[in-house]
Amino acid sequence: MQLKRIVLGVQYDGRPWLGWQSQPNGQTVQDMLEKALQSIATQPVKVSCAGRTDAGVHALEQVVHFDTDIDRSLTSWVRGVNAHLPESIAVRWSSEIAQASEPELEFHARFSARARTYHYVLYNHPVRSPLLSGRVGWVFRPLDEQKMQDAAQYLVGEHDFSAFRATTCQAKSPVKTMHEITLQRQGNFIFLTLRASAFLHHMVRNIVGSLIAVGVGKYEPEWMQEVLQTADRSISAPTFMPDGLYLAKVDYDPKWNLPQQISSLNWFA
Amino acid sequence: MQLKRIVLGVQYDGRPWLGWQSQPNGQTVQDMLEKALQSIATQPVKVSCAGRTDAGVHALEQVVHFDTDIDRSLTSWVRGVNAHLPESIAVRWSSEIAQASEPELEFHARFSARARTYHYVLYNHPVRSPLLSGRVGWVFRPLDEQKMQDAAQYLVGEHDFSAFRATTCQAKSPVKTMHEITLQRQGNFIFLTLRASAFLHHMVRNIVGSLIAVGVGKYEPEWMQEVLQTADRSISAPTFMPDGLYLAKVDYDPKWNLPQQISSLNWFA
Repeated sequence: MQLKRIVLGVQYDGRPWLGWQSQPNGQTVQDMLEKALQSIATQPVKVSCAGRTDAGVHALEQVVHFDTDIDRSLTSWVRGVNAHLPESIAVRWSSEIAQASEPELEFHARFSARARTYHYVLYNHPVRSPLLSGRVGWVFRPLDEQKMQDAAQYLVGEHDFSAFRATTCQAKSPVKTMHEITLQRQGNFIFLTLRASAFLHHMVRNIVGSLIAVGVGKYEPEWMQEVLQTADRSISAPTFMPDGLYLAKVDYDPKWNLPQQISSLNWFA
Repeated sequence: MQLKRIVLGVQYDGRPWLGWQSQPNGQTVQDMLEKALQSIATQPVKVSCAGRTDAGVHALEQVVHFDTDIDRSLTSWVRGVNAHLPESIAVRWSSEIAQASEPELEFHARFSARARTYHYVLYNHPVRSPLLSGRVGWVFRPLDEQKMQDAAQYLVGEHDFSAFRATTCQAKSPVKTMHEITLQRQGNFIFLTLRASAFLHHMVRNIVGSLIAVGVGKYEPEWMQEVLQTADRSISAPTFMPDGLYLAKVDYDPKWNLPQQISSLNWFA
């Protein structure tokens, strides 16, 4: 039996889970997914993912891979697995990648990723929204999105992002390349999109916290550059809540032919 | 102390609750709201609502009223009450209505309502959506929205809606006026909007079930007219799931000056 590498696109609501990464208590997305995959594969399955999301963080399209010698249709890896998953997690697509001649040429959900895109959805309204509870970050004070956009631009490019890095971060280097940060207001919502080579632990939530400090008028946009240059986490704003954070897209070389789906900013439509 | 009539706009996620109407076990939206109001009013409060939603049905803007002799700011009836409500329920606005000279001239959340608008959101995709679980009705077979729109038009106007009425329905008459039914596809979503003088118990979910039967090609659009004319509930399709149903808007005479908010079809934006 030949070993195959199966790639999956996985969507989840992060609220019920203690994050992506497997834990002894089993209440994580990875634990749920591996258990469901095992039901179909009839053998233990270990998956690797593109981005380890924290507790309460959602994914529009997490990408994972695993190896198996079991023959199953691509539909089994989607609908079959979904029948064994809780409501808040679903496999959206699957793909089989032919074995490479050398290990370093092989597809890897994490190491083959070229960039990651996250969305953060802010709900800017005096009253909290019960229909979006756990799904948006709520800011009741009026936000000036133009100032936030101005502040965000200081982060674009290659920088040492230590000022926005959690002490628990295990990344080898704090230097990452921020390809773009966009802000778009639609009524009471502000949609932030951040695309970078990779993200440090809590980096998006720390950036969002600091952008909000600018948006409410506590600091001027230029403060963002000062914070970045200090490389000192104690200067930037507190880590903002996970509720509005979505892992939206992982970029790979088109040669892998992954059936990735367009994740529109407004995923509801 | 003078008795005042307070009107509230209430939004809720129906998933955790056994519907609107108070029950001995207390797990209803009305029970939660009355308990929270009592904390602010420091006296028992009984509310009346515009539309009693079923278990699992959501509200973008339910309208309720109650009488009290307690003096509280309009902000207290919003932010103060929200501090005592669970995450899935929130008061969005409040208004005080001056006492009328005669009882029959008084504002009443239910009896003063001129029309109700409901949205039903269908997710039409081969794979279920974990991010929208409990918030949309999922149909994995392709739906022909034009046929559904054609079928829906037979319901517009004044009709005996007995064919779409639950046996448990307590309405005096099955004759209601359907002002409009619109369908709009946006990508994988179909948004239905129904506006009527009033709705019978399960009426929207029974209509949606029958429209889906047309949408998947089981019946031609003309079947909808036949079903309506039989006035026989056993002919129409099964009651569709509550997940995608939203009480969106209640229409009142503008003289009441209620600060109702525009509930866009796509409430997320």
